[in-house]
Amino acid sequence: MNSNFYSELNPNIDYSRKNLRLDGWGSNGHDFFLKDHFLEIKNLLESEWKLGELQKSPAIPYETRVLPKLRLTKLEISAIQKISPNAYTDDYERTFHSVGKSYYDVLRLRFNLIKEFPDIVIYPKSKEEIAKLLKYASSKNFAVIPFGGGSSVVGGVEATKSRNQKAILCIDLTKMDSLLSLDETSQTATFQSGIYGPKLEKLLGERGFTLGHFPQSFEYSTLGGWVAARGSGQQSSRYGRIEKMVNSLELVTPEGEIKTWKLPAYSTGPDLNQIIVGSEGTLGVITEVTVKIHKLPETRKYVGFLFPSFTQGVNFIREVNHNGIKVSMLRLSDEDESRLFGNLANLGKTSSLYRTIKQKFIQKILDVNGVGGNKSVLLCGLDGSEEEVNSSLNRIQKIAKSFQGFYAGEKPGLSWLKTRYNMPFLRNHLLENGIGVDTLETSITYDKIFYLYEGVTKAIRSSMPILSSMCHVSHSYIDGASLYFTITFPLDIKNPIAQWTKMKSTATDAIFSLGGSVSHHHGIGLDHKKWYIKTLEATSEKALKGFKSGLDPKNIMNPGKLFS
Amino acid sequence: MNSNFYSELNPNIDYSRKNLRLDGWGSNGHDFFLKDHFLEIKNLLESEWKLGELQKSPAIPYETRVLPKLRLTKLEISAIQKISPNAYTDDYERTFHSVGKSYYDVLRLRFNLIKEFPDIVIYPKSKEEIAKLLKYASSKNFAVIPFGGGSSVVGGVEATKSRNQKAILCIDLTKMDSLLSLDETSQTATFQSGIYGPKLEKLLGERGFTLGHFPQSFEYSTLGGWVAARGSGQQSSRYGRIEKMVNSLELVTPEGEIKTWKLPAYSTGPDLNQIIVGSEGTLGVITEVTVKIHKLPETRKYVGFLFPSFTQGVNFIREVNHNGIKVSMLRLSDEDESRLFGNLANLGKTSSLYRTIKQKFIQKILDVNGVGGNKSVLLCGLDGSEEEVNSSLNRIQKIAKSFQGFYAGEKPGLSWLKTRYNMPFLRNHLLENGIGVDTLETSITYDKIFYLYEGVTKAIRSSMPILSSMCHVSHSYIDGASLYFTITFPLDIKNPIAQWTKMKSTATDAIFSLGGSVSHHHGIGLDHKKWYIKTLEATSEKALKGFKSGLDPKNIMNPGKLFS
Repeated sequence: MNSNFYSELNPNIDYSRKNLRLDGWGSNGHDFFLKDHFLEIKNLLESEWKLGELQKSPAIPYETRVLPKLRLTKLEISAIQKISPNAYTDDYERTFHSVGKSYYDVLRLRFNLIKEFPDIVIYPKSKEEIAKLLKYASSKNFAVIPFGGGSSVVGGVEATKSRNQKAILCIDLTKMDSLLSLDETSQTATFQSGIYGPKLEKLLGERGFTLGHFPQSFEYSTLGGWVAARGSGQQSSRYGRIEKMVNSLELVTPEGEIKTWKLPAYSTGPDLNQIIVGSEGTLGVITEVTVKIHKLPETRKYVGFLFPSFTQGVNFIREVNHNGIKVSMLRLSDEDESRLFGNLANLGKTSSLYRTIKQKFIQKILDVNGVGGNKSVLLCGLDGSEEEVNSSLNRIQKIAKSFQGFYAGEKPGLSWLKTRYNMPFLRNHLLENGIGVDTLETSITYDKIFYLYEGVTKAIRSSMPILSSMCHVSHSYIDGASLYFTITFPLDIKNPIAQWTKMKSTATDAIFSLGGSVSHHHGIGLDHKKWYIKTLEATSEKALKGFKSGLDPKNIMNPGKLFS
Repeated sequence: MNSNFYSELNPNIDYSRKNLRLDGWGSNGHDFFLKDHFLEIKNLLESEWKLGELQKSPAIPYETRVLPKLRLTKLEISAIQKISPNAYTDDYERTFHSVGKSYYDVLRLRFNLIKEFPDIVIYPKSKEEIAKLLKYASSKNFAVIPFGGGSSVVGGVEATKSRNQKAILCIDLTKMDSLLSLDETSQTATFQSGIYGPKLEKLLGERGFTLGHFPQSFEYSTLGGWVAARGSGQQSSRYGRIEKMVNSLELVTPEGEIKTWKLPAYSTGPDLNQIIVGSEGTLGVITEVTVKIHKLPETRKYVGFLFPSFTQGVNFIREVNHNGIKVSMLRLSDEDESRLFGNLANLGKTSSLYRTIKQKFIQKILDVNGVGGNKSVLLCGLDGSEEEVNSSLNRIQKIAKSFQGFYAGEKPGLSWLKTRYNMPFLRNHLLENGIGVDTLETSITYDKIFYLYEGVTKAIRSSMPILSSMCHVSHSYIDGASLYFTITFPLDIKNPIAQWTKMKSTATDAIFSLGGSVSHHHGIGLDHKKWYIKTLEATSEKALKGFKSGLDPKNIMNPGKLFS
């Protein structure tokens, strides 16, 4: 194969800010693959979820909105523009950079409920400009929000300031998106942090390499954002989470610069890279990242398995990890998610009668093989040499058998590959039609995984009327795995914020009290802060604040996020 | 195989402090495997290194020494003993805990040059005792040095205090050495930090598991020490460095406790585990560590290859890493080290005439295979299932061929396995005979590895008269590898400290200026501090000090080490 893992999908996205969707995922002309089948989707959901009466929920037209006044003087604006000429104060830029892309953000954007906006949005071209901007902001006590793709779903890029701060500066990094160097001997590449996923993989792919970081946000997020939020891509089993990919980096802070050394490994005190990864803009602006890169794999095989239950599927995942078998991805949907995705995938392909016959036929085969009616679908991704891939698949098939797993061939994998970055687009359409949808994610060791799965599901179901609660495992390790919940509910158009707050709060309380991570790969931002601070307890919080105060004594960097 | 990787060597070490060697490596009855052949060794070194006239350098008898007076009052001692009854102020305990096991330490111990001693050595039994001890020490402004196996070779456990501190408390953790829990489902185990390597592997091995951390100090170092110094074991290619093995941990500080959550992965801000790993006792006392464990491998194969040069061997290592082939260990000696180890391994086995004939015969085979006179020996360790091991070996043999590597079978591997923890004992004997020996280690990305190798070698050779300078690669990664230098020199009995200081300083200056890590796996301690602080620059140093001040505002924890 040896091709860029993304090239076959390449939608040639135009990232100019006005072309990107303001209050939803994606950009003009880049939409949900089944958007022309939305009526069928609704019918499908009707039978799946018993939709009942839904309230239409159109967005308030953007043109009718009035933004709060700028809190910067003309002198201040021109001082900023003197440092960095591409700096804008128009309403569109301010609105686009006011929040991220969470359900909560989209709700507020659609219903004109945003209260706080940046006063200026700056697109610097160099780290020198950034250093000057931070010095200036520090001298004026302005808050500074670093902004990449803006795809945060936890309030990580929301415009915030401390009470004593006068204004908010947003630093958009996307004009700093160059490949600075590629070292084929050491297999490392140094990029400016504002580079989007597709461009990064294209530049590496042309030289025969890949980074291997493919989060669902891949098309609309940047390297700097991945690092700042400590993200994880769909192929993390092979390539690792972003923190494993970082060789070294550069952080510009109000008090100066930190540039870690390009080294493969070291025993030199606390790991500075691992403090900056996950710092979510609260310590400074990540300007450059050197990452470890890999040769493009010789071949790629994405296959499906059917398990009689989510439990057996999780047991299978654990066993594969305990045996150290090389895979790129193990992605297991629980019974509800499996059924929905299966039905969605069939939409628009064939007549519904043919589908029914075909499904019954497949069910017959599954029954004979001991896989009952409630199926849990697992997708297994394998990348590597022909020999490696076949040897791993061989071992995996044996393990799957011992958990009553049924090998379903490459078709489910191919179907997933085509649509793997597409699900966030569906939210736009659901929301238009009165259906709210949010996701929650956590991680937990295997000893407590079922306990957490059931506890969180129960908490969500009992807290509010929902349409569905589904879950999948998308990242797994020797000691545990992630759980990713998708919850849909009839939108309460009168109190959409209170409805969301209650759901989020109930679910995160459950995750926290059952010992799950406050976040596995989305980060903390504003939305998880309350629980994060509880996990830190007073001791760690004080220490982390001490670290920050060495770099940002006035707390101008992304104030209010994380521990800041 | 499925046996504990250490059981075949088990020397049943008695760790009582009086049984351990005070001024050298090891314990009574546990010595260098060739110690009965020392005359032959000397003859061998004579021809290898042209020893010339050496000065005998006997240690000053321990009994004749007088220690400085205790700086604790009787009341203070009894207050400490009330918290933790196993607390001692005798000369032996104070001397044993005054320094670690570096060449510099051993020199000073042998020549009675230690200036600073702990005033009391405490063996707590619980974290509650430690918490009380730290509170007490903080209230009295006493320095506190956490101490595990005491095997630091960088001054990491040296008794130090700030000028304004009255006395030094040493907390020896080795009485806290229990397995607290083993979670077979999540493959994690929680230990108290004071457990020595052999006991830890024995407890895991009985249940079919291994941690897989086997540093050369394995027999005389503890889990807490590995974590505090951010160490790395000989099988790191398979099991990772210690920071990768840590799932979570507990740190007791003067201001309270940090207990990180048992989780497989998380995106929850800066990684607290990775701040505490490598903190070298400066933030608090690591009391518990939860590690990821692995099933004991089905089989194990350690084989040798001969390369025509160190350069070709390094190129081979890089290629194996770039192809992501699963190995446990790749260990490559440069030409000088290869020749010496080869000759050492043959000592005492057969008559010298037979040896000469055999060597000539082997050389003949090597010549035919294109491996010239200057050979570089590589040991490759493979652990796993029969299939995995064979498949990896197969791929490795192909790569080796393309770098003119000659497969030498299992004999070199078996020989290394038997003696792998034994080299530090040789230092004792060399030092008795007027030969100084020290080691230096660093890491570097592949693009600069030869440049660093040559630069450091040249700096050492030009700085002082040496007997030999040898090097090996023992840890490798996708982006680079470690370099481990062993330098021998005729001991300058009149100025041994100045001689060492000059060598250390010259070599570390070279490492630093050529871009190598100040340490790959030994840590910073006192000996590397000067260069470490330079890599931090003012910005990071200030931030790290800020972090520490949240936990240890009076700087009582291991003062003078790292950034403290």
